[in-house]
Amino acid sequence: MVNIAVLGYGVVGSGVVEVIETNKSIVNKKSGQELEVKYILDLRDFPGDPHENKVVHSFDPIIEDDSVRIICETMGGVDPAYQYTKAALEKGKSVCTSNKAVVAKHGAELLAIAKKNNCSYLFEASVGGGIPIIRPFNECLTAEKIEGVVGILNGTTNYILSKMDKEGADFATVLKEAQEKGYAERNPEADVEGYDACRKIAILSSLMMGKNVDYEKIYTEGITKITAADFDYAKKSGKTIKLLAMSKAVSEDEVLAMVAPAMISREHPLAMVNDVFNGVFVTGNMLGDSMYYGRGAGKLPTASAVVGDVIECAKFLGENIVCFWDKDEAQLVSVADTQRAFYVRAKAEALEAVKAAFSDGEIVTLVGRSEDFGYFTKVLQEKDFAAKCEALGDVILSKVRVEA
Amino acid sequence: MVNIAVLGYGVVGSGVVEVIETNKSIVNKKSGQELEVKYILDLRDFPGDPHENKVVHSFDPIIEDDSVRIICETMGGVDPAYQYTKAALEKGKSVCTSNKAVVAKHGAELLAIAKKNNCSYLFEASVGGGIPIIRPFNECLTAEKIEGVVGILNGTTNYILSKMDKEGADFATVLKEAQEKGYAERNPEADVEGYDACRKIAILSSLMMGKNVDYEKIYTEGITKITAADFDYAKKSGKTIKLLAMSKAVSEDEVLAMVAPAMISREHPLAMVNDVFNGVFVTGNMLGDSMYYGRGAGKLPTASAVVGDVIECAKFLGENIVCFWDKDEAQLVSVADTQRAFYVRAKAEALEAVKAAFSDGEIVTLVGRSEDFGYFTKVLQEKDFAAKCEALGDVILSKVRVEA
Repeated sequence: MVNIAVLGYGVVGSGVVEVIETNKSIVNKKSGQELEVKYILDLRDFPGDPHENKVVHSFDPIIEDDSVRIICETMGGVDPAYQYTKAALEKGKSVCTSNKAVVAKHGAELLAIAKKNNCSYLFEASVGGGIPIIRPFNECLTAEKIEGVVGILNGTTNYILSKMDKEGADFATVLKEAQEKGYAERNPEADVEGYDACRKIAILSSLMMGKNVDYEKIYTEGITKITAADFDYAKKSGKTIKLLAMSKAVSEDEVLAMVAPAMISREHPLAMVNDVFNGVFVTGNMLGDSMYYGRGAGKLPTASAVVGDVIECAKFLGENIVCFWDKDEAQLVSVADTQRAFYVRAKAEALEAVKAAFSDGEIVTLVGRSEDFGYFTKVLQEKDFAAKCEALGDVILSKVRVEA
Repeated sequence: MVNIAVLGYGVVGSGVVEVIETNKSIVNKKSGQELEVKYILDLRDFPGDPHENKVVHSFDPIIEDDSVRIICETMGGVDPAYQYTKAALEKGKSVCTSNKAVVAKHGAELLAIAKKNNCSYLFEASVGGGIPIIRPFNECLTAEKIEGVVGILNGTTNYILSKMDKEGADFATVLKEAQEKGYAERNPEADVEGYDACRKIAILSSLMMGKNVDYEKIYTEGITKITAADFDYAKKSGKTIKLLAMSKAVSEDEVLAMVAPAMISREHPLAMVNDVFNGVFVTGNMLGDSMYYGRGAGKLPTASAVVGDVIECAKFLGENIVCFWDKDEAQLVSVADTQRAFYVRAKAEALEAVKAAFSDGEIVTLVGRSEDFGYFTKVLQEKDFAAKCEALGDVILSKVRVEA
């Protein structure tokens, strides 16, 4: 029997207990032994909860109890989750987490501590919720030199963009509706400004490089400036708009990583990733493209990934499950120096000026819409594009990168 | 250092050697040691090949060499691949294979032999080529009760159906073109009649059930009767046609498995799986739907999966990597007793008869096409549907299941 402690009895933490209970026989069979939740750490009491007698308000009994071999960290936030994780790993207790903030910020350090103490730090649930993506990276695509990752990693923004695409609604309206349905937070900044996706692509980039990719250095742009008109022009051109988290290995030490809305072809597999679903597109030098798709959030999907990690830890108690993510910093390539095509929407009066600035692009007009036009540039450097837009001034109403 | 032998120096076998060479430093790092191809078994000689001195024409030196710990079985066909695999496992040598015929027929037995001899039998490459699907089943979705799998598992038929969909061409024309391009065999039966997909869904079904699912008992229907007209009606209804390999856990012991062409909504993620790509849709009781997408065939993608397995074996030398697939037979539920909706195409003259036979369905007509019509039934039992079609007689021109 293996004793487990769950830190944080919120959405994911209570889901972890539920998954272990509901799928008890499967979980125990796959673990090769019985899993038992011994402690639940939370500041609150849960009178009437079937597990109320397991609830403790201090980390001390958990860290002091040598029979606890695996800890599920489902607290959220960096502190004290980071301190608890570190203390647990230092005592040889494996930690499984859904906490992307801790993984993005302290992943390399915590993995090193786990290795030193013959235990494991696993974080499948931190990216893509229930979609297996961390383990495919670490244990499936092992024969691959992974060259790039493009993901739809945030369910809230994907829900909003999917709605805007389907209904022609504008950002503010759809955000409000998403908030009412509980798909978006009352303070939606972490999602709509791309910060959540940024931490997730930092984690995937670090695994791709085997080196630390600092999330604070990743260029991050949200979706708040995307308009219904932009979707109309995208549609007319056979495209849609998604918030993409992208990462590309430029050399052994250099990576190009960014989070930004982008137009992609409706034929691209990522275009099929709609509503709250997530999708991760991985390119390897032998396999080419592969994609992983599923529910990127939600109580039970996320908890299922945490429990999958717990089972892995139970199978390898006293051993370290290897993960290549060194403390050495990967260098982030400047986005300004990279090349791609762009879409702009501009005031009708600026047609000649836009044509002159970006030669050989493609003009898109919409029937019944005379106040502006869409324009797709050829591939050019980001900084050239930015300079041209600045020179054109406020006739430029929208700018979106074009990816595929 | 770990010595490896490659059985069969054909497309996949030579790919295995190429992947190990091209990604040498990654492969060795992930393995935790150096991998060395010591023998290549093939009946042919390969004068001028950089590895010609490793080629042997008999299995004896390989099985007798105790320094060979891992064998890649990339021969194809059941005999002698099965005998060699069995002999290797009995001597404690792990075997990694792309050979779906051996896995489907002898998987349960070979896994039991591997377990007994503290070595492993891995077969990631046998389903979905380079797409990680076996390991996600066995090592990622471990907290899930997997309830169903729906896959596009054969690249040749998917190429043909994608072309028919895009170009409005008929089956014979596209098959001929696929044969000229090397995407279809000169004798295309194994692909177009669904036999290849059948073996693959038998493997996935066995893993889902943890019990043996006999591929010979799986209802299997190919794509040869699908016409350009069926695609026209499908399109008009927002659908496309795919060859689906489907499996559903009905109870602990009972499974519904089948391979058949089916109409699916163009909004379904599997509708985006086009050309030679494969996709596998997995439904779990906690996670809901997840999908795995990528190249289902081809030299390097398939070889990459084999080498991924080799790395896993190298990490756990002398240990058995557990796989739950017992010899006990799962019972196959009769397809005739299941329920679903159907599409039929019928001669124009039969409109009233079809309406009378299937009440409350939906008639679809195409502009400029008066000789026939499409009809979508409500959900009904397969055997009722079959009986009604038989009674209607030869006015029924096509029948296709409707899935999603």
